Amino acid sequence: MIVTCVYFHIKHDAINDFIEATVLNHNQSVKEPGNLRFDLLQQDDDPRRFMLYEAYESEESAAAHKNTNHYFQWRNTVKDYMAESRFGVKYKIIEPNDRTKW
Amino acid sequence: MIVTCVYFHIKHDAINDFIEATVLNHNQSVKEPGNLRFDLLQQDDDPRRFMLYEAYESEESAAAHKNTNHYFQWRNTVKDYMAESRFGVKYKIIEPNDRTKW
Repeated sequence: MIVTCVYFHIKHDAINDFIEATVLNHNQSVKEPGNLRFDLLQQDDDPRRFMLYEAYESEESAAAHKNTNHYFQWRNTVKDYMAESRFGVKYKIIEPNDRTKW
Repeated sequence: MIVTCVYFHIKHDAINDFIEATVLNHNQSVKEPGNLRFDLLQQDDDPRRFMLYEAYESEESAAAHKNTNHYFQWRNTVKDYMAESRFGVKYKIIEPNDRTKW
């Protein structure tokens, strides 16, 4: 099981559009085989900053996400919304180490 | 519902001790009323860096965590393990907005 945290800095006038597109992406991503979580968070002290908390059963299922129609559609929709390039940080999961807790 | 991400940079020779203490903290924290998640992650490309993904039902339940015995014990145990001060980032939850998905 792995987590990738993806960090976004969004143009002020694109916040609502980014949320709309990313909720659609969330709704499809949580249905992927191997997806454990796909949480969309907005930073409390700066509404232009977001994080996606993407947890998958395996490297393979995380990679498969980037080959879905909803990912391509989302990526294309949000590309002009970025104030800066997004970046991801990959993590190993220490706890919960029990698959049923995800 | 809120999430706080807490980021840690741990001294190299304290990594195993940090994990041991933080697993104990995790095991108690997930039993708190109002706790939704308390994931412990280790950065893939730098094993000295960790993140706690702390999700709670409310500001009140998140604040109550910092008044538990297991929090005090953990804080006291890990304080000398830090290579730098830890810091937290608070987030609003956009998705999943359904409590049952947590």
